[in-house]
Amino acid sequence: MTYNAPLKDMLFVVNELANLSEINQLPGCEDATPDTVEAVLEENAKFCGEVVAPLNQSGDKEPSYWHDGQVTTSKGFKEAFRGFADAGWQGVQHPAEFGGQGLPKLVATPCIEMLNSANIAFALVGLLTDGAIEALLTAGSAEQKTRFIEPLINGKWTGTMNLTEPQAGSDLAAVRTRAVPQGDGTYKIFGTKIFITYGEHDMAENIIHLVLARTPDAPPGVKGISLFIVPKFMVGDDGSLGERNDVHCVSIEHKLGIKASPTAVLQFGDHGGAIGTLVGEENRGLEYMFIMMNAARFGVGMQGIGLAERAYQQAVAFAKERVQSRAVEGSAGPVAIIHHPDVRRMLMSMRAQTEAARALAYVGAGLSDLAHSHPDEATRKANLAVYEYLVPVIKGWSTEMSENVARDGVQVHGGMGFIEETGAAQHYRDAKILTIYEGTTAIQANDLVGRKTVRDGGAVAKAILAQVRATEAQLAEVRDADFTAIRSQLVAGSAALEAVVDYVVTNTKADPRAVFAGSVLYLKLAGIVLGGWQMARAAIVARQKLDAGAGDAAFYRAKIATARFFADHMLAQADGLRHAIVDGAAGVLALDVEQF
Amino acid sequence: MTYNAPLKDMLFVVNELANLSEINQLPGCEDATPDTVEAVLEENAKFCGEVVAPLNQSGDKEPSYWHDGQVTTSKGFKEAFRGFADAGWQGVQHPAEFGGQGLPKLVATPCIEMLNSANIAFALVGLLTDGAIEALLTAGSAEQKTRFIEPLINGKWTGTMNLTEPQAGSDLAAVRTRAVPQGDGTYKIFGTKIFITYGEHDMAENIIHLVLARTPDAPPGVKGISLFIVPKFMVGDDGSLGERNDVHCVSIEHKLGIKASPTAVLQFGDHGGAIGTLVGEENRGLEYMFIMMNAARFGVGMQGIGLAERAYQQAVAFAKERVQSRAVEGSAGPVAIIHHPDVRRMLMSMRAQTEAARALAYVGAGLSDLAHSHPDEATRKANLAVYEYLVPVIKGWSTEMSENVARDGVQVHGGMGFIEETGAAQHYRDAKILTIYEGTTAIQANDLVGRKTVRDGGAVAKAILAQVRATEAQLAEVRDADFTAIRSQLVAGSAALEAVVDYVVTNTKADPRAVFAGSVLYLKLAGIVLGGWQMARAAIVARQKLDAGAGDAAFYRAKIATARFFADHMLAQADGLRHAIVDGAAGVLALDVEQF
Repeated sequence: MTYNAPLKDMLFVVNELANLSEINQLPGCEDATPDTVEAVLEENAKFCGEVVAPLNQSGDKEPSYWHDGQVTTSKGFKEAFRGFADAGWQGVQHPAEFGGQGLPKLVATPCIEMLNSANIAFALVGLLTDGAIEALLTAGSAEQKTRFIEPLINGKWTGTMNLTEPQAGSDLAAVRTRAVPQGDGTYKIFGTKIFITYGEHDMAENIIHLVLARTPDAPPGVKGISLFIVPKFMVGDDGSLGERNDVHCVSIEHKLGIKASPTAVLQFGDHGGAIGTLVGEENRGLEYMFIMMNAARFGVGMQGIGLAERAYQQAVAFAKERVQSRAVEGSAGPVAIIHHPDVRRMLMSMRAQTEAARALAYVGAGLSDLAHSHPDEATRKANLAVYEYLVPVIKGWSTEMSENVARDGVQVHGGMGFIEETGAAQHYRDAKILTIYEGTTAIQANDLVGRKTVRDGGAVAKAILAQVRATEAQLAEVRDADFTAIRSQLVAGSAALEAVVDYVVTNTKADPRAVFAGSVLYLKLAGIVLGGWQMARAAIVARQKLDAGAGDAAFYRAKIATARFFADHMLAQADGLRHAIVDGAAGVLALDVEQF
Repeated sequence: MTYNAPLKDMLFVVNELANLSEINQLPGCEDATPDTVEAVLEENAKFCGEVVAPLNQSGDKEPSYWHDGQVTTSKGFKEAFRGFADAGWQGVQHPAEFGGQGLPKLVATPCIEMLNSANIAFALVGLLTDGAIEALLTAGSAEQKTRFIEPLINGKWTGTMNLTEPQAGSDLAAVRTRAVPQGDGTYKIFGTKIFITYGEHDMAENIIHLVLARTPDAPPGVKGISLFIVPKFMVGDDGSLGERNDVHCVSIEHKLGIKASPTAVLQFGDHGGAIGTLVGEENRGLEYMFIMMNAARFGVGMQGIGLAERAYQQAVAFAKERVQSRAVEGSAGPVAIIHHPDVRRMLMSMRAQTEAARALAYVGAGLSDLAHSHPDEATRKANLAVYEYLVPVIKGWSTEMSENVARDGVQVHGGMGFIEETGAAQHYRDAKILTIYEGTTAIQANDLVGRKTVRDGGAVAKAILAQVRATEAQLAEVRDADFTAIRSQLVAGSAALEAVVDYVVTNTKADPRAVFAGSVLYLKLAGIVLGGWQMARAAIVARQKLDAGAGDAAFYRAKIATARFFADHMLAQADGLRHAIVDGAAGVLALDVEQF
């Protein structure tokens, strides 16, 4: 099953919803003209479709494997990674001074989507490397930047994030790995890290592990965690590789999905101590790690969208080809199953959710560019706040919806979907990690409630809702059945979201258990309403284009129909979610532990 | 991970909701006294927990495999099947005259649930054999019954259903397998059947294939299909095994889940023709097969419930054990994750849906007993109609919810859930077949719309809704927050279901595509409302028991809390579903095929 990047939709979102022309005017973003961006995305689409996508199923069938501390990756991965790095795709959003392309996040984001549509297991090595680059750019010394960033961007080396330990899954306060200062500016690192994505592999010459650990006098809890660079091979002043460091992969996991991506258990310091250097200041490691994590969380949201798009394309191809049973309205003989209304419903659901999540994420990427590059500080700050509100939604909702989309993808295939050969089942297996790693949906939801809603008394959420209301007013200007339906559901959805924001702001301090009992539902509601808002905006643009007789009329009509579907099928769930959040805590919390 | 049958809840449902005491008074059901039933279920629980459950994960790790036309099943399956059959578990619901226990379906149903909680892949051999027995009991000749049924009940032999062919998945009109009469009362069978569960294995001496095929002069389509017995080994008049028949397993599938269960491709007649004998009359095969299929559909619904229970138990055990992060309301140190509100919400969702689906299914089993054994014909007919309305709901909704429950089970485990060793991921993989085989959810939904709702103008649906209303009136008599909430959501839910029934009855003929665009959503709505109804009934009984000071107060309080959860989280979705059904077809059907 091939992958064809949905460039038309991507460019529509980039240009019409995420306002590339505005981003293009920001200082440092002058190169990202609409024409250049289109060319970049076309080139990326070609690489992802031709080189990376064909390795998705083969990598799943013949995963990476461990032997004697080494990991051999799936056939073709090494060469594809070489091609990826040589073409500059690792560096799309990174600074030109270290060899990157220096393009806005709004341009990198569709590239990341395409890579993940092509092959999530492959894309992970770049995702983690992006995170390492971000952390070094923010907190690394000038010398560390010079030494490490360029080889990470040109793909000579890759990066990892070492957070989790056996006793500390999501709870970084429980990190035990020790960092003992050696008096020469280096530290010796001792401990075990688990679930380290691409913690060991054969695709690059060196691996730069970014590791959370505690110095001997560090305070307990999250305030005593520092961040260290621990390279697999020591790096000389001239960038040359030196001795093997004392960090070793003792095993990799046997997983449900993303099998080609090696998930390592790393042992630090079993032979005298792994040599590490501090990033930034001691005890500020969590702060720096959050930089990586926020970038990575957005990236995992894109994985969900990429996977959903791939699953959708595969289901559409099957549904057009598979002939089975007569039409419910009668037909001479059996018809292609895409003609059956329930198959149609599943395909529309897959499509609508994917398009909505894509629009929300790209809009978020544009906000991030404004937050980083706008000359006006107040504008930067305002956009940063909205972007940060959206990050847990983009991560949590896009991945939750990708599970549903992958599930529907199997279902469209019927019995063939359950046979591994078909490939639909792989998406169902791969999707399941996305709602877990880089913080489960519940952790995203805690962030949404605590840092993103309660802390500012709901101000940012209300500011976003005011924008939704403005869109509702625009919808009212188009008088037809589609726009009436979209408006009516968006109005109900935004009212539900506003009621929930008020509930969260009012009750979190007094009754945290009740509010957090509905936190994931709040995240889902926010995803549905804000995704529905983007679909409504898309429909308005599409209507304008149609009225102006511009462009591809079938595309714009489909966009309006898809927005209509999203409204009647997704936004219509909003009030039920509101009820479950506002009135549903009693049922969640009533039982004693012994009653389970 | 062990399995402990939820006998307390099972007996509560059997006695209080499905009215065992009433069933016990039916002719032929006199042995099924509450005490006997309790003893039977306890014994079955012991067997399933001790013998079958431990083979679940090992069977997944080392699936059955094919070699030279033979299939070797997973380690321990053969011995466990011997124990299963010897203890009489295959025969629970089958007639005593053929060696069965002759117990009501209401008693067999919890046994089937337990077997499936223990091991779905193992349970399938019995499920299919049940289907073969049902078909032979209904349509077989006296001679066929004598020859075949007893060995199927005592487990010397097993049975299969051969429907699907490569070009005919769900569409039996497309069946091409040929049956050529030989003039001696036998037929030679030629063709290929796929997806044949336990179509070849080493657990019994013989396999009795029930095969759909066409005789030479048969009319086209579903009216030209006949049903044949094709044994793997020919069976002599005295029941002794004769020559190997010309039916051969050419391969088995590599599947997403239920890996221990061999899914065979069977080739009939490649070496001169497989010898078969007609069951019943020519061209009535589909009718007979529907008998098997209806029993099997109910059985697959029970698989969903069994799997959900197992996934729930595993998630609860992990959540009680795993210590991680402080409590949201503050705590001295990290707490067991069952204390975290979102984990609690997932566990309650798993529990509430499982209990509701169990209650609905067992009540359905009781209606089936009334439909078969009540002395009054009108009562039999009325109960049969309600049972038949429920079958697609029990199959479709219980399996759809089992996917969600298995998904939440992985999520509760966090990163550990994605590691196959943990076992949670197996449920997620296994669950995916349940919404597909024995008719996808869409096919169940077509049945619910067409045969079960439109055909009688919604009369049965309305009769059920009248019973729901009676429960609503009872709920109003208890004045506390839980019952007020349950009643309010049930009232809204039944109103939504009634509106949808009216919509379906009014519009199916004039606009079938619009109605079928919402058919699966109608099925889900029916499941939620009728499951919620059973939870409400359970809460009323629990309240009465508590008021009377009878029995296990913690159990009854948990039942009320679980009903409350179901109301606020599941029933609250009803109106959104109604909207998507009644107003959502435009979005589903707007696109041309080329726009996908």
